[in-house]
Amino acid sequence: MVEAMKQGKHVVTANKFALATCGKELLDTASEFGVKLSYEASVAGGIPIIHGITESLTANKILNIVGIINGTTNYILTKMTKFGMEFEDALKEAQEKGYAEADPTSDIEAYDAMYKLGILSSLSFGGYINVDSIYREGITSINSVDIEYAREFGYVIKLLAIAKDIDGSVELRVHPAMIPASHPLANVNDSFNAIFIKGNAVGDLMLYGRGAGDLPTGSAVVGDIISTLKNQSDIQASTHMVNKSEPKIKDMEDTRCEYYIRVTASDTPGTLGAIANIFGNNGVSLASVIQKGKGDVNVPLVFVTHETLERNINKSIKEIKAMEAVVKVDNIIRVEDI
Amino acid sequence: MVEAMKQGKHVVTANKFALATCGKELLDTASEFGVKLSYEASVAGGIPIIHGITESLTANKILNIVGIINGTTNYILTKMTKFGMEFEDALKEAQEKGYAEADPTSDIEAYDAMYKLGILSSLSFGGYINVDSIYREGITSINSVDIEYAREFGYVIKLLAIAKDIDGSVELRVHPAMIPASHPLANVNDSFNAIFIKGNAVGDLMLYGRGAGDLPTGSAVVGDIISTLKNQSDIQASTHMVNKSEPKIKDMEDTRCEYYIRVTASDTPGTLGAIANIFGNNGVSLASVIQKGKGDVNVPLVFVTHETLERNINKSIKEIKAMEAVVKVDNIIRVEDI
Repeated sequence: MVEAMKQGKHVVTANKFALATCGKELLDTASEFGVKLSYEASVAGGIPIIHGITESLTANKILNIVGIINGTTNYILTKMTKFGMEFEDALKEAQEKGYAEADPTSDIEAYDAMYKLGILSSLSFGGYINVDSIYREGITSINSVDIEYAREFGYVIKLLAIAKDIDGSVELRVHPAMIPASHPLANVNDSFNAIFIKGNAVGDLMLYGRGAGDLPTGSAVVGDIISTLKNQSDIQASTHMVNKSEPKIKDMEDTRCEYYIRVTASDTPGTLGAIANIFGNNGVSLASVIQKGKGDVNVPLVFVTHETLERNINKSIKEIKAMEAVVKVDNIIRVEDI
Repeated sequence: MVEAMKQGKHVVTANKFALATCGKELLDTASEFGVKLSYEASVAGGIPIIHGITESLTANKILNIVGIINGTTNYILTKMTKFGMEFEDALKEAQEKGYAEADPTSDIEAYDAMYKLGILSSLSFGGYINVDSIYREGITSINSVDIEYAREFGYVIKLLAIAKDIDGSVELRVHPAMIPASHPLANVNDSFNAIFIKGNAVGDLMLYGRGAGDLPTGSAVVGDIISTLKNQSDIQASTHMVNKSEPKIKDMEDTRCEYYIRVTASDTPGTLGAIANIFGNNGVSLASVIQKGKGDVNVPLVFVTHETLERNINKSIKEIKAMEAVVKVDNIIRVEDI
């Protein structure tokens, strides 16, 4: 790619890994040699999100991005939500249908979504963002029990890629999250992708479509080629990633969220109260508590918190895990009241 | 606008009326004088739909467009759907909140949506489309009874702008329609706009956002200005509308749809059967029939048809209206199983 640009050739690519990890160098090279580097297909296939950010939304300060940008995990979570399938079965079906690769790690551990968020946030927040700054958590720990609790609370579980500019520092995270069932993103199903962007002028904007596949990707690649041909004499490198310092990244411990926490504990008097006390002592206020299966030896306890610091949750979980009555902290899932 | 272009000035406009009615002349002038005419803000405010069609989707043959492109009517229909309000009350609230003008005709009679569909379809189907070719029907006849029946059938009522390329002739219509409650467009509420496009390569694509308001419109206008400045030396008029013949337009009578038909009839034996016979004789097959209020003098009868020709519906309705037992055909709403 670099060699082609050095020889004065315009480049159109769908390679998200290259853009996410060496985007600055690639765009610097394009700029230096006066050629155009286009990469619409690198994020969300046929959805014109790169063009949207770099052309249509140039008048805006981007405030946040919330996206479903991995089709494989969205397919798996959709099957789990709609048909009560377990993760392993849904993954197997995704592999059989060609939505997941034989080695699914990059998708299910959210590396793919992380690279894509790296590109989107580098274009949106005033400078190149190193993907190592992105908090990443895959979907392998989600199971049908969590999906069922989510439904009871009026939520749907999606793998979200989130980037927010909060008072000049950027929050970057990719993880499963519960979102309200009424939110447009909650109805983005199967292998579809969607990206929600808030700009200070345009307000909420969502782009939805097929994020992968030969034809959607081809649509983006050919769109880039035609655009390059039309504007050949006026090539300017994207000013977004080039020659700028890395934006300030927020420490994950300093991010704020609501949390769903599922615990298995022995059904002894006072356990629920003791856990609630731990949360309270760490500044975590509870929104809901559900205890089911009264009378069994071990019972599931489910807590949903009000918005709090990640740091407070981590401290609480550490103390809860140390309790004698607690068999296991089964899962912790962030709740995004978007 | 024409004068400015003749003096060699690039023009950025949000004037949908001018584009829809004189778009060809305006773009011809831009082409003749080597200037750029940009009009992203003319359709759906901050949503980059013009850019999407003319730049990102150039590799695609557009197969169809289904949009909610009028915020005022969407606000009214949302209030009617969510709070059981009647049309007049919802309109009054929309006027109080500044979503509807003192004279709301252009919005509620769907002229606004018609102009916007004229622009989108002119860009999508290979030549300038005269807005007079677009079938247009407003939302004034929708009432809470229809909304309630829609809910029973699993539908939501939206004002849709529809353009479809079917075997080389273009179907163009703006009217209220019932759409499945699970479709992404069904959850586009309040004054939000959304446009669903199917391209032969990209598949289904949806763009969602604020269709009006100072800031979203400003976002589109400034985006156009920046884009014009960046590409000044390489201006090419849009090839979409210019120098092309008008595409072949499908006669509305030849369009196919499912239909919801609500009739008030006297509760006499045989009325339902007689109406069903009329439908059958005109080649209209029924999917559901609901008769409520048994025992009253007049009862509502509701029919939902399978897909059929508009012509067959029109013939059926004429015969049904002539029946002695039929008090009134209260409403006919198309059902789009998108």
